[in-house]
Amino acid sequence: MNKFMEEAVKEAYKAIREGEGGPFGAVIVKDGEIIARAHNEVIKTNDPTMHAEVNAIRKATKKLVRFDLSDCEIYSTCEPCPMCFAAIHWAKMKSLYFGASRFDAAAIDFDDQYIYDVINKTATVEQVAIKVVDAKECLEPFKEWQKKQDKVQY
Amino acid sequence: MNKFMEEAVKEAYKAIREGEGGPFGAVIVKDGEIIARAHNEVIKTNDPTMHAEVNAIRKATKKLVRFDLSDCEIYSTCEPCPMCFAAIHWAKMKSLYFGASRFDAAAIDFDDQYIYDVINKTATVEQVAIKVVDAKECLEPFKEWQKKQDKVQY
Repeated sequence: MNKFMEEAVKEAYKAIREGEGGPFGAVIVKDGEIIARAHNEVIKTNDPTMHAEVNAIRKATKKLVRFDLSDCEIYSTCEPCPMCFAAIHWAKMKSLYFGASRFDAAAIDFDDQYIYDVINKTATVEQVAIKVVDAKECLEPFKEWQKKQDKVQY
Repeated sequence: MNKFMEEAVKEAYKAIREGEGGPFGAVIVKDGEIIARAHNEVIKTNDPTMHAEVNAIRKATKKLVRFDLSDCEIYSTCEPCPMCFAAIHWAKMKSLYFGASRFDAAAIDFDDQYIYDVINKTATVEQVAIKVVDAKECLEPFKEWQKKQDKVQY
């Protein structure tokens, strides 16, 4: 078994056994060493964004004091949900390794697959009602951002 | 202009003027009152997950001491990226109102549209290399989760 994935699996067991969250773990590797290890902590923290991957990204960026993890790889025990998948992209990570699939997660009652279906417009049920309002007014801050001289693009 | 969106726009200006992040704001409303207001803080915190919506969800769930925001609505100045869109679903929110679109965000150089394209498999460039490893071993924690008697499903 891949030695990094083995550590991610240990994290998944921690989540279950310590009652902190769903059965998911992740580690982030830089230059062949683990710089962050994390598991799902949704139950413990009451924060629905505290998935293993997001948790690991937060720890790694805090450690490196930068939001850019382009020199890092992430090992996750399960295919990331769209939230974590996008977070991995925002962090500009170079590689993602995962084990179980979104379908495996669906089989134990997690919504990953459903949310992918909503995004891909193949879901038959709409959990969140979505409406566009004040589109024109919401563009005003974008104009100020464009003019800002000292902005940091991420 | 919608009074809640007006507050979200104020948050977007804060992000720009205080140099804390991209030009995005969000508020969460429960029973007709704002219970959380937030803006993008990626630059300030070095946390790439600190988008306005995720930030607002974290604040609201902390305030209510529960991960379920099914009695809440979110107003965001921009169409949520896949990370925030999924976070809104994980929080089980009932409604999402947004102003600017993912295309407007792309026009000021944010990757929202690109990440949607990757998820929808229409992107021509692959930023993150993805590989499946140890799928079988990663399913083991799922089996323990299924047997767990006192688990909290979210």
